Amino acid sequence: MQKNVFQFNEGNAKMRETLGGKGANLAEMVNMGLPVPQGFTITTQACMNYLTNGNQLQDDLKEEIQQALHTLEEQSGKKFNDMTNPLLISVRSGAVFSMPGMMDTILNLGLNDQTVKVLAEKTGDERFAYDCYRRLLQMFGDVVYGIEANRFEQYLDYLKDQYHYQSDTDFTAADLKQIVKVYKEIYQEAIQKEFPQEPTEQLYAAIEAVFSSWNNHRATIYRNAHGIAHDLGTAVNIQMMVFGNSGANSGTGVAFTRNPSTGENKLFGEYLMNAQGEDVVAGIRTPSSIEHLNETLPEVYQQFVNIADKLEKHYKDMQDIEFTIEDKKLYMLQTRNGKRTAQAAFQVAYDLAKEGLISKEEALMRIEPEMIDQLLHPVFKTQDLKGAVVIGQGLAASPGAATGKIVFDTLQAKRLTEAGEKVILVRQETSPEDVEGMLISEAIVTSRGGMTSHAAVVARGMGTCCVAGCSDLKVNETTRSVQYEGGTLTEGDIISVDGSKGVIYLGEIAAENNEETEVFKEMMNWADQMATMKVRANAETIQDIRTAIHFGAAGIGLARTEHMFFEGPRLQAMRRLILANTARERQKPLEKLLEIQQEDFYQMFKEVETRGIVVRLLDPPLHEFLPHTADEIKEVAKQADMSEEELLVRIKELTETNPMLGHRGCRLGITFPEIYEMQVEAIITSACRLHEEGIPIQPEIMIPLIGTKEELSYLRELLEKKIEDTLKQLSNQIPYQLGTMIEIPRACLVADDIAQEADFFSFGTNDLTQMTFGYSRDDAGKFIHQYKRQGILKADPFVHVDEEGVGALMEMAVNKGRITKPELKIGVCGEVGGDPQSIQFFQTLGLNYVSCSPYRVPAARLSVAQAAISASNK
Amino acid sequence: MQKNVFQFNEGNAKMRETLGGKGANLAEMVNMGLPVPQGFTITTQACMNYLTNGNQLQDDLKEEIQQALHTLEEQSGKKFNDMTNPLLISVRSGAVFSMPGMMDTILNLGLNDQTVKVLAEKTGDERFAYDCYRRLLQMFGDVVYGIEANRFEQYLDYLKDQYHYQSDTDFTAADLKQIVKVYKEIYQEAIQKEFPQEPTEQLYAAIEAVFSSWNNHRATIYRNAHGIAHDLGTAVNIQMMVFGNSGANSGTGVAFTRNPSTGENKLFGEYLMNAQGEDVVAGIRTPSSIEHLNETLPEVYQQFVNIADKLEKHYKDMQDIEFTIEDKKLYMLQTRNGKRTAQAAFQVAYDLAKEGLISKEEALMRIEPEMIDQLLHPVFKTQDLKGAVVIGQGLAASPGAATGKIVFDTLQAKRLTEAGEKVILVRQETSPEDVEGMLISEAIVTSRGGMTSHAAVVARGMGTCCVAGCSDLKVNETTRSVQYEGGTLTEGDIISVDGSKGVIYLGEIAAENNEETEVFKEMMNWADQMATMKVRANAETIQDIRTAIHFGAAGIGLARTEHMFFEGPRLQAMRRLILANTARERQKPLEKLLEIQQEDFYQMFKEVETRGIVVRLLDPPLHEFLPHTADEIKEVAKQADMSEEELLVRIKELTETNPMLGHRGCRLGITFPEIYEMQVEAIITSACRLHEEGIPIQPEIMIPLIGTKEELSYLRELLEKKIEDTLKQLSNQIPYQLGTMIEIPRACLVADDIAQEADFFSFGTNDLTQMTFGYSRDDAGKFIHQYKRQGILKADPFVHVDEEGVGALMEMAVNKGRITKPELKIGVCGEVGGDPQSIQFFQTLGLNYVSCSPYRVPAARLSVAQAAISASNK
Repeated sequence: MQKNVFQFNEGNAKMRETLGGKGANLAEMVNMGLPVPQGFTITTQACMNYLTNGNQLQDDLKEEIQQALHTLEEQSGKKFNDMTNPLLISVRSGAVFSMPGMMDTILNLGLNDQTVKVLAEKTGDERFAYDCYRRLLQMFGDVVYGIEANRFEQYLDYLKDQYHYQSDTDFTAADLKQIVKVYKEIYQEAIQKEFPQEPTEQLYAAIEAVFSSWNNHRATIYRNAHGIAHDLGTAVNIQMMVFGNSGANSGTGVAFTRNPSTGENKLFGEYLMNAQGEDVVAGIRTPSSIEHLNETLPEVYQQFVNIADKLEKHYKDMQDIEFTIEDKKLYMLQTRNGKRTAQAAFQVAYDLAKEGLISKEEALMRIEPEMIDQLLHPVFKTQDLKGAVVIGQGLAASPGAATGKIVFDTLQAKRLTEAGEKVILVRQETSPEDVEGMLISEAIVTSRGGMTSHAAVVARGMGTCCVAGCSDLKVNETTRSVQYEGGTLTEGDIISVDGSKGVIYLGEIAAENNEETEVFKEMMNWADQMATMKVRANAETIQDIRTAIHFGAAGIGLARTEHMFFEGPRLQAMRRLILANTARERQKPLEKLLEIQQEDFYQMFKEVETRGIVVRLLDPPLHEFLPHTADEIKEVAKQADMSEEELLVRIKELTETNPMLGHRGCRLGITFPEIYEMQVEAIITSACRLHEEGIPIQPEIMIPLIGTKEELSYLRELLEKKIEDTLKQLSNQIPYQLGTMIEIPRACLVADDIAQEADFFSFGTNDLTQMTFGYSRDDAGKFIHQYKRQGILKADPFVHVDEEGVGALMEMAVNKGRITKPELKIGVCGEVGGDPQSIQFFQTLGLNYVSCSPYRVPAARLSVAQAAISASNK
Repeated sequence: MQKNVFQFNEGNAKMRETLGGKGANLAEMVNMGLPVPQGFTITTQACMNYLTNGNQLQDDLKEEIQQALHTLEEQSGKKFNDMTNPLLISVRSGAVFSMPGMMDTILNLGLNDQTVKVLAEKTGDERFAYDCYRRLLQMFGDVVYGIEANRFEQYLDYLKDQYHYQSDTDFTAADLKQIVKVYKEIYQEAIQKEFPQEPTEQLYAAIEAVFSSWNNHRATIYRNAHGIAHDLGTAVNIQMMVFGNSGANSGTGVAFTRNPSTGENKLFGEYLMNAQGEDVVAGIRTPSSIEHLNETLPEVYQQFVNIADKLEKHYKDMQDIEFTIEDKKLYMLQTRNGKRTAQAAFQVAYDLAKEGLISKEEALMRIEPEMIDQLLHPVFKTQDLKGAVVIGQGLAASPGAATGKIVFDTLQAKRLTEAGEKVILVRQETSPEDVEGMLISEAIVTSRGGMTSHAAVVARGMGTCCVAGCSDLKVNETTRSVQYEGGTLTEGDIISVDGSKGVIYLGEIAAENNEETEVFKEMMNWADQMATMKVRANAETIQDIRTAIHFGAAGIGLARTEHMFFEGPRLQAMRRLILANTARERQKPLEKLLEIQQEDFYQMFKEVETRGIVVRLLDPPLHEFLPHTADEIKEVAKQADMSEEELLVRIKELTETNPMLGHRGCRLGITFPEIYEMQVEAIITSACRLHEEGIPIQPEIMIPLIGTKEELSYLRELLEKKIEDTLKQLSNQIPYQLGTMIEIPRACLVADDIAQEADFFSFGTNDLTQMTFGYSRDDAGKFIHQYKRQGILKADPFVHVDEEGVGALMEMAVNKGRITKPELKIGVCGEVGGDPQSIQFFQTLGLNYVSCSPYRVPAARLSVAQAAISASNK
């Protein structure tokens, strides 16, 4: 029989899958001899069994729980419902992957109308006992019965108002008894049911609630957003209560062994005296810094510092630790690898490597490629901030800078973003219900809560800019307004948020990119050294090429040439060329275009120098160059010396039913050879000019949309002749390569033949995916979205390469191509070339390089290194 | 060293590739001991060497020719330029595949100003000698120097007019001397060169001309039209002259061992006395029937009959024989398997099988599947001919019936057909220059020439209806008019042609299909018995289903359902469905459509009975059902109770950039499940009704455009539920299958997964080809045409399956599918399902059936039999 329940001392850190992250780490800490309240873990498998068997706790599971509970009672000397020493426990979820705030916690379970009195007597603190009881009622109601937390909070707020209390701690024992009474009435009102007095009944209900919460809406959304499988389930951790709210010598806190924002190697944390755990995380009261504990409880502080150090060395990573102090006694409630900003991730990994705790490879593996986007998040530049109106200063909870329209909830955030607006979610505090809105917001601002509040933690995880606890702002979600000193903002007003400094500005401020740190640069060097695939960039404008090179691109993997024909005199010449009827008429625009292209290529090549650049010959269908509006048609007809009717006929002739599958790419090259000939002449002439200037560039000329060997051999012969003629005319000789895109499924199937004519391959995964799936990117959005929702597609194949289908074709092409030419250079220049997950796959195919948009280059550099490290570990 | 020249006695019939068809058969006849003028053959390889080596006769080839010539001189006792016994020879091309009229012939080579006198003296017939000389000048001028034959003919016509001669035979020796003189002047005028007097020079020039003619325009067109490779080359046959024009006891003729029009087992031929070979074929004089020879030269006739019989038994096929009689002595100049009409092909093959000369398999292999189209060519029905005006009666040269506009040349034929017109080519006689025009004409009419004239032979080969030698019509190509008794027709006037009866009618007459003969039916039965693949039809209208079954379809392989929504109230309901906003609004049109579909399927199933029918669920994108014109939009908006603006917005929403790759097929089925549910409900209900009527049909429901297993499993679950619900409601149980089209490249790559959810596969080769090549059929016409011309594509992949690319995917799909389900039923329902060449390939894949349009079913039935026979011979 499967074991469903583990005592903490039966587990260890490696049993995450079974015990969840929290349970495994509790077990590990117990084994390390650290002070952990006793308890046990119900496994993730038990959760999945429950969910797949009609949401029913099976008898055998109940029996195991009873046994474990019995052991706990023996260990603690306490007992459920005991009238002298009642056992109180916490029930916490703990999934394999940390899902902050997504799952639910119940404290003080075991209290009821009887045991609360025993607790009061035993501790001599009636106030404490009833505070515990009202918390249980509140959490239990929320988690088990779905009674809105707000209904309980409202009554607390009402009483505080009534008695002019500042804080929860001002409540007297009498107040709390009254609160308990009212809370029980809320149960009756909301669910026509009494709060269950029997602790075992409470326990089973709590366990079922935790199990069920695995499938709640917000958990599902979070898993979708983070690519976590839905069939893992969550474990449940049952632990004897220790009380941070049992007086002035008690407290609770959260700390990181290093700074999770900057990575600085310095203990970083917060605690609240006389509070229970959720008070800190929920951001209801503003906590004190961990150093302050050294003043209040120096021995406890020192013990904590030692434990934190021990844990970090043990786990070899920055730890995120939850602790409680009960009457000067320290208890560890949780440890886990801490979430961190991108900057901190680099700093911590780098430092750990330098400290010798981990290898450079391990350090690189610690960075998620997505973090680089975060690291390179925009900032407001000093000059743009002159005269900017600061309306608030809060905690710099998650770095970055953003501008957008104020929204107060997920619904409004969705409405505006769907209309193409950028939004900033502004709330008193966030809760799991807000996660969907947070995901689509540019920034998050809260008026309450600390660095470890829900808003801060989630925002950092998302890489979204966040200012938390900005008490300068009075947020009113009901009236949908924000008051600041000097005015009021309402929904739709624009603010700017600096998450790195914690400042909120009025109106719009342009954000610019962050500077790269030295640590970042050095780690990227490590990455480059370990990678076996190069990272090139898809770029053709001078600006993009510069950005790409700045971000460390090894070269240009795709310079599209069609953009060179889309404006001003270029477009005019192109149109004249397309509309010409005779070779004679074609001559002039061709000469004009040749001249323009020569200068274009010269400038491009000059930027790229000898890094390598793949120039793709003209790809789109000709009608894309023709006018569309009536005015344009009038003008173009006049320029081309033809009637509007004639021009319309020509446009109609060139219009296609399915342009994606039409007369484009090499098909144009073959039917209008003058265009490709002109392009290679321009490429070769420009390259020769650079050779003469001492920059020996070797252009890689790429022919798009090849589906048969014959197309390529025809064009190769045509273009080689043109190139030789050009070189002869220039009395020069330079090296060049003629290669092809592999983007037509058929090209993969006959890649051995095509390789005979190609100096290199470059996968055009966008078109290859379109044709392999029969999806038009322009049209398929609607159903791809629905397919993902219904689980028919695991991922959008334009975002992550479809390994099974498109990948199988790619593998075929690589194998066949290299049968013909074992050393054939093969790259990817489609959108997925910059996707970390796809890059892992490309490593297994043995590609030579990936090419992606300039801003994705740094993340891709890390990804190729990680892929190489993973491969060498296999 | 390669042997380039073979004496006839060194070869045999199996050496076609080397010696060409004519050379190989001459050699075979020599070995059979038949009377063949001595000679030798220059090989096809020698031709290709010449063409690929700068069109230069190599010295070693010349030496071999000289040696062979020397042998010929010794055998014949004659010599080039000999002043007592000069050697005269014929030079004839002879390719591997017969290309009638395409290549060139020169007779009487060796004559010059000296030897013509010797010939005159020796034969005592000056007229004969100079007739030979003028023929040499004429043919040599045409073939070697490209001097238009017309220039020579014009002078002959001029003289005949001058002297009121009826025929060429009226020319006197003096006339012919004068003609020779003028012909030589024509050389000077046309090419500023003398006719070469030296026989060796004549010979080399003639050989080079034959070699070069392999690549001339009409030869290239013919090869393209008949799918003959361009790198085969032609052999050259050099043969001692025998003279059919040496007096009243000489003659020349062409005969078939059976009737090439009907297949009747009776010698069929024509001859001309005192004539040389080209006089018969060119149709200049009208020849006598071969039986007539029995009266003029009975011994020669008897000898010929014997030889013809011997040849047919030897070759086991109907022979097409050319012969010459020189002074009562019979010479065989050529034998080959005779070209024949479809009817004759069936009759001959059937008779040969019945006679025991060949097996049934061999008989089937003798029929080209294309001939069935010919056999089933349309005829005019008796009732439609009442009152029709006959304007001419000629020879029934090639069967069929057609109506079209008169054109007089290829150029005009092309112009009109490109404008979508049907044309009939009308000429005095046709020549190789007309082949291009003949290919695109509905029918061919000539006013001169016999059953073996160029027009007749070529038209039969093409399966184009032809009336030859219709002397009732006076065709004037210069004035572009046709005179008939009672009027004049000009270009563009409409006539109707009955090629089976040789009648020309004025104006348009509707043509209907031919009746099938008993021989045809019996041979098709043989075919069905030998085939391993079934032939189904793509049909959904009752008319098409009936046609398909009439033509012997084993079932329906593709019944498209979209056509059921495209007219009248169906279209209205469909539009209401598409435009509905709520499930409630959708209900009514769904019910309406369900009702319509139930009746549709019932009628279809009733026709098909238990043969098997694959019903494809809705495939096209929804916008195809929406209105396009302003009027329609107005009306539809009114019906749908929405404003025109709203409707236009909806249409725009549904419009796609690349509809081929858009929201269609199973993607619709998933996003609008009501439609597929309604369709399967209708299918199952109709099927149940037929079961109750005692016809236990088993519908095969096919889901289009599947690319992932998940799509199919989702729909399978949805539809199975609907089917089970429907069956439960009807209290019935019937068998059914749920299968899928394989038409997305990805489906082939993951066919093992997809097979888990599919009861059958059916390749949709049209879409599969579109996506594998990235060609949109709607747009790719232009460049596919050019690709074929430039040899980049060997064939249009929508006509013949692309074995290398698309075929590789299909093979993968078959193999993977059958790994999952070894007995998986797999068919093809794309256009190539009816293509004989593709069917050969499908046999190698091990498919279960092909499905094609109803009219292609008979040819496909033959093709699947041939494929099975070929496979079992391997």
